[in-house]
Amino acid sequence: MSAAVQVFAVVLRHGPISRVEVTARTGLSPAAVTKAVRPLVDAGYLTERPDERAPSRLGRPAMPVQVVADRAFFVGVKLTADEVIAVRTDLCGGTRDVVHRPLTSTAVADVIEVVADVVGALATGYEVACLGVSLAGDVLRDTGMVRFSPFLNWRNVPLADLVSAATGLPTLIENDVRALTVAEHWFGAGVGVSSFALVTAGTGIGCGLVVNDVLLPAGELGHVAIDVDGPECYCGGRGCVEALAADRVVLAGCSTVVGRALTMPEAIELGRSGDPAVHAVFERAGRALGLALAAVANLVGPERIVLTGEAVGGYDLYAEQIRQALAAQAFGAAAACELVVRPLPFDEWARGAAVVGIQDLITRSGAARGSAGAVTLPAR
Amino acid sequence: MSAAVQVFAVVLRHGPISRVEVTARTGLSPAAVTKAVRPLVDAGYLTERPDERAPSRLGRPAMPVQVVADRAFFVGVKLTADEVIAVRTDLCGGTRDVVHRPLTSTAVADVIEVVADVVGALATGYEVACLGVSLAGDVLRDTGMVRFSPFLNWRNVPLADLVSAATGLPTLIENDVRALTVAEHWFGAGVGVSSFALVTAGTGIGCGLVVNDVLLPAGELGHVAIDVDGPECYCGGRGCVEALAADRVVLAGCSTVVGRALTMPEAIELGRSGDPAVHAVFERAGRALGLALAAVANLVGPERIVLTGEAVGGYDLYAEQIRQALAAQAFGAAAACELVVRPLPFDEWARGAAVVGIQDLITRSGAARGSAGAVTLPAR
Repeated sequence: MSAAVQVFAVVLRHGPISRVEVTARTGLSPAAVTKAVRPLVDAGYLTERPDERAPSRLGRPAMPVQVVADRAFFVGVKLTADEVIAVRTDLCGGTRDVVHRPLTSTAVADVIEVVADVVGALATGYEVACLGVSLAGDVLRDTGMVRFSPFLNWRNVPLADLVSAATGLPTLIENDVRALTVAEHWFGAGVGVSSFALVTAGTGIGCGLVVNDVLLPAGELGHVAIDVDGPECYCGGRGCVEALAADRVVLAGCSTVVGRALTMPEAIELGRSGDPAVHAVFERAGRALGLALAAVANLVGPERIVLTGEAVGGYDLYAEQIRQALAAQAFGAAAACELVVRPLPFDEWARGAAVVGIQDLITRSGAARGSAGAVTLPAR
Repeated sequence: MSAAVQVFAVVLRHGPISRVEVTARTGLSPAAVTKAVRPLVDAGYLTERPDERAPSRLGRPAMPVQVVADRAFFVGVKLTADEVIAVRTDLCGGTRDVVHRPLTSTAVADVIEVVADVVGALATGYEVACLGVSLAGDVLRDTGMVRFSPFLNWRNVPLADLVSAATGLPTLIENDVRALTVAEHWFGAGVGVSSFALVTAGTGIGCGLVVNDVLLPAGELGHVAIDVDGPECYCGGRGCVEALAADRVVLAGCSTVVGRALTMPEAIELGRSGDPAVHAVFERAGRALGLALAAVANLVGPERIVLTGEAVGGYDLYAEQIRQALAAQAFGAAAACELVVRPLPFDEWARGAAVVGIQDLITRSGAARGSAGAVTLPAR
């Protein structure tokens, strides 16, 4: 990464921040930081403003560097089977506007039309640098292809090119869990650590992994087997984490013990009111989730794991089992891994897609498809 | 990494190699490669020799660059509970000499004495740049401390400083599985891939992980749970891979079904001769190992997994179960992960410790403890 990119990324994640701290965090020389900051200030990306709250010892105000949030805007879209959730963010990842729109068809052309409509509503009047689209499944950022999306039933869809053509914006696509992981790493619970995992529990069990500040193209935690003799999974495996702890499994278990079909809110309500059989179903799922988190901690060794997803709504019903299983199974140094539980609604997932665009602009990975962005970071 | 380090590392792993290929593999400019190669040639680390077998199109012989293997020597030591295995290697990781010496005591001072003796025998008459020592357990390369070694029953032993004082050599220590992983990544089955896993099965189940060409300080595969209701493990967990597939578990299982205490060679012999109960014990262990490999493939996504260890000796007894379980449980892109089975005797593990020293010299990580090395790579 060039010095400009390193400096900008540090100011974005940690600003407002003094030049001394930028020097410390980037490992660059003070002269290199000064040389990198100047063109970024000239181009309107960074600003140095006196901080009256923290005057320097010489009586002059300190001049921390910070990102000019309004210098560029981004749109992020999260696709689900029945809804498009979209946000516009500023350059600092702050959400400025949100739109939800139902999906009545999952045909590619229909989804593109809704996406273009929603993006148009959010982008009009703003200089949008990049559009990020995230969805569950086998999604390749580099080529812009959706290889497989189970819930949309798409195979080999060149989504980035299609969306870029429909919106006129440079477009990036990413797996939704990985996009959320990027956002948490840069602006959320992952700030301050270089190895970090995000685990999402709900319809599926997903996992995003950041190792040495790099997002891995892996993290298939949902199909790690934790029960050699467990139930068959739709993937062809057996005893997968998803087959033991996904929402549908918990709900089916609760419905069976109660003897009638429940909704998830009903199941959670019964568990909270003390129904022992329902509570036991949640506890089993909690134990499975705890073992899954322990597998991540043991094998990959992140400093912090963030647990989120729809299942966090009933978290109180199995929090104890999750923590117990994680503690019992984490080995050696893995026991030091910190667990943070965070509800992140779909608006945050859409923001994750926007942050993938921010990261692409800043690190100049150049994966965005379509017309050259309205905004590009100065070369040096 | 400086250009010199990048160039040297590429020539070491891929040489003899043309300058054009060095340029391609490092991403440096031709001018930068030329500038980096010259001082390395002057200092005797690299040489350019005409390659008569591959004349250039202009009729002049090509001049591939290669490392001068004899420019520096390294000693690597692997400690087990009852033996010290040591090798001397050249700068290319080639093993030049091997010494095995029994350990009659595991007291720290006694082990140091044997190590110093063995190293003295290997190092005399050679300019040894670095000594690497590897052992199982919680071993910290950066501080040179053995936090815990179960089989030597050591806690918080400043091993690198002690060995360096006794031998007079700059000394590095590393976990034995990670050291072997480094050697395989640089000179073995991991050459050519940037994400790579080594899994060792035997007394314990170990795992070394290289992601984006960086060794992770993690890989506790042995205590990943793959059987939620499985047997208790000495670690306090339940259903750990080690509790289902370690040698002692397989041996205990075979002894139980036969009704008398077996040795491992006897158990393997009975399995091979077709004893169905003994064979079934191996098959269960194989299934557990396959699920463990699948957990690595799913979660971390290496391009290649190398399976090795003492258990590979009876590999034919459960190869089918390992491959079946891995294939059934690997999800999506993880199914493309290549499995390579390689017997690596303890001499290779000792070589791994030496390669940690080579890597330290080349990447200048500076973790070696003790007197400044006789050999240092020129700065540019």
